[in-house]
Formats: sequence, structure tokens, C-alpha cells
Amino acid sequence: MFITLEGPDGSGKTTIMAHLMEELSRRGVRTLATREPGGTDISNQVRQVLMSMENRSMYPRTEILLFCAARAQLVEEVIRPALADGVVVISDRYADSTLAYQGYGHGVDIGFLRELLNFATGGLWPDRTFLFDVDSETGLMRRRKGGVDWNRMDDYELAYHRRVRSGYLELAAAEPGRWQVIDAGRSQDEVYNELLASVLQLIS
Amino acid sequence: MFITLEGPDGSGKTTIMAHLMEELSRRGVRTLATREPGGTDISNQVRQVLMSMENRSMYPRTEILLFCAARAQLVEEVIRPALADGVVVISDRYADSTLAYQGYGHGVDIGFLRELLNFATGGLWPDRTFLFDVDSETGLMRRRKGGVDWNRMDDYELAYHRRVRSGYLELAAAEPGRWQVIDAGRSQDEVYNELLASVLQLIS
Repeated sequence: MFITLEGPDGSGKTTIMAHLMEELSRRGVRTLATREPGGTDISNQVRQVLMSMENRSMYPRTEILLFCAARAQLVEEVIRPALADGVVVISDRYADSTLAYQGYGHGVDIGFLRELLNFATGGLWPDRTFLFDVDSETGLMRRRKGGVDWNRMDDYELAYHRRVRSGYLELAAAEPGRWQVIDAGRSQDEVYNELLASVLQLIS
Repeated sequence: MFITLEGPDGSGKTTIMAHLMEELSRRGVRTLATREPGGTDISNQVRQVLMSMENRSMYPRTEILLFCAARAQLVEEVIRPALADGVVVISDRYADSTLAYQGYGHGVDIGFLRELLNFATGGLWPDRTFLFDVDSETGLMRRRKGGVDWNRMDDYELAYHRRVRSGYLELAAAEPGRWQVIDAGRSQDEVYNELLASVLQLIS
């Protein structure tokens, strides 16, 4: 079972995912948490390049290819072996982030991106994707307040983040069997409880 | 005018290119030398990841995407602006390296790679490509003796380097209008003289 969490930074998904992993472990479920970009030594080196504020001159195509490179390594080195071993893999972001941020956000052709993602992932797509949906102002405001490191991706203008959000909603609407939209504008407890209930049902 | 030099490490192309650039400058030709992977701050950060011997666990797809990322940045930040300015750009390696090393060397589908390269480069291909052809044993031996840092790419087995060489020759044969094969098994002077004569004719 391969589950991914999508949505903007500031939607709370990273914190809530940490609670989810703890709860699943407590219940004896064998799980593996990964995050994107990152999750392997090599992918973390690529993450550094992607996130550094020094690299403001990065072009969208460079960005896309770097995200895909980090992901290719993560899939082969970590995700596939874990899935083959019967582990429930939950990833904080995955291929849909590229469609949302680079496709809808930067206007890159979605058809080509899907082909590129199929190459990068060897055709591995999640069984279930949870979209943490929150309006873009709230997401960015939470990031600024959260004490987390503001990064190069946060720094794009608000209109960009709005295109990303509507892109996510479009993806979810197009493939309702895989996506589940969670209203992440609510309290952390409410969001967590909805996610946990859905995941437990899924893996039971 | 966009010229690229291709061929294995150890074929002498990097040294000979340095002499070529000097000679062209001396003759008042406005030139720009670039190398791959690298040539911009961001591309050099990616180069580090690609070349580090620490990163032996890198998968072929990761490698391909990283080379393309470094190239995408180089094209937009450096090559296109220079070409638009009438400068003769000469690059030590370019997109054909991906076809040879990752396509022929690792057996990745050439058709998909071309599409990926068109994306990464925004469709920019060289006007002329010189292939420094040398048998693989000689190339690797020169690398070992040359005092240059042995890197992760050199470390692939001999059979891999042979597939790369025959891939290069196939590419050259398929597009004779763009490629010129130079026998790089000869002395450095002979190789240099042939290259210089051809480049001078080309830009005159």
C-alpha cells in the first residue's frame, strides 16, 4: 500500500503525518515514512540544491528535472523495496507535486510531465493520495509564522500558489478513485482524525 | 554558431579545447567555452552530486535526470544569451552525451531520451559536433595516467565504455551533416590541427 500526502507547505501535512506514523506504529502496522524531495543520501543532496535561497536563478525546467531526479532515486532505493516487503509506505509529497507546482504552477505541458514522471518513477503511482486543501493565503501565512525555514519555493508569488491549489483540485476531481480531499483549514485535530480514520479503513 | 565536442573522457578533448579557445581568441573570434555537467553555479552543484564517488548507489534514471537538469540551467542561463549575442559557443559535452552514456551505455530508450533532451534544452541542438573517437581501453588508460580525478562515471566497467563508443559512432553515422569524427588516437598536435582547421572553416 502506497499512500501520498499532497498540498501546499503550510497545510499542516508534515506535522499531521508525523502523528499518523506514530499511531500506526503503535497499532503494529509496519510503515515507512518518506519525504520529497529527499529520503535518500543522493536525494537529500538534490534537495539542498532545490531549496537553497542562493539558487533563485533556477529555471523551471531545471527545477522539474531535479525534483524528478530526487524522486527516481527515492523510488528505486527506498519505496519499491519497502512495498515489495509488504510495508505501508506514506510519502510527504510525490509525483503529483510536480504536476501541481511545475505543470499548473509554471504552465509546463501536463502530458509531457506525466511521461517524464512515468520515466522517473518507473510507472509507480500511489494507491491513495490525500490532498490537504487550504487557501493559499492561509498556507503562506502559516509558513511565515511557523518558524520553519522559508525556502526558494515559498518565495514564488501568491498567484503561483493559487494556480497550484486549483491544479491540485483539478487532479483530484479527474481521478476520484485515488484522491481524497481533506479540508486542511480546520484545526489540526480535526484534520488528523479524518486522515487517521481513512488510512485505517484503507489498510484494514 | 553552437559547436560541441563529444567523446570519452581520456580522448583529450578537454585539453585540446583549451588550446582551441586560446587560438580563436587570439584571432579575435568572440567565443564562450562551457563544459558539461557544469557551467553555472547551479549546474556545478549538480555536477558535484553526479561526480562524487560517495554516490555509487545512484540509479541510471537519477543520473539521466541530473545531467538534464544541469544542462537545462546551462542552456537558459548561458548558452542561449551568448548565441543571441553572436558569440561562438563551444561546449565540452552536451545532449549527445546523454544519448551515448545513458541511452547506449545503460540501454535507456533512445526515443524517450530525445524527447527528454528536447525538453531540457528547449530544442537547442548544436550546429556542429566533433566526436573525439578513441578505443575505450586507451581512453581509460589515459584517464588513469593523467592525474585527473577518477570519478564515478569512469568507474563503470569496460563493456559499458565500449557500448558508449559504438553508440557515439552510430549517432555520427545517422546525422553526418552535423557530426565530424576525429581520430583521437593520434598525437595531440594532429588532433588539434584537424579540429582547428575545421572550426575555422566553419565560422568563416
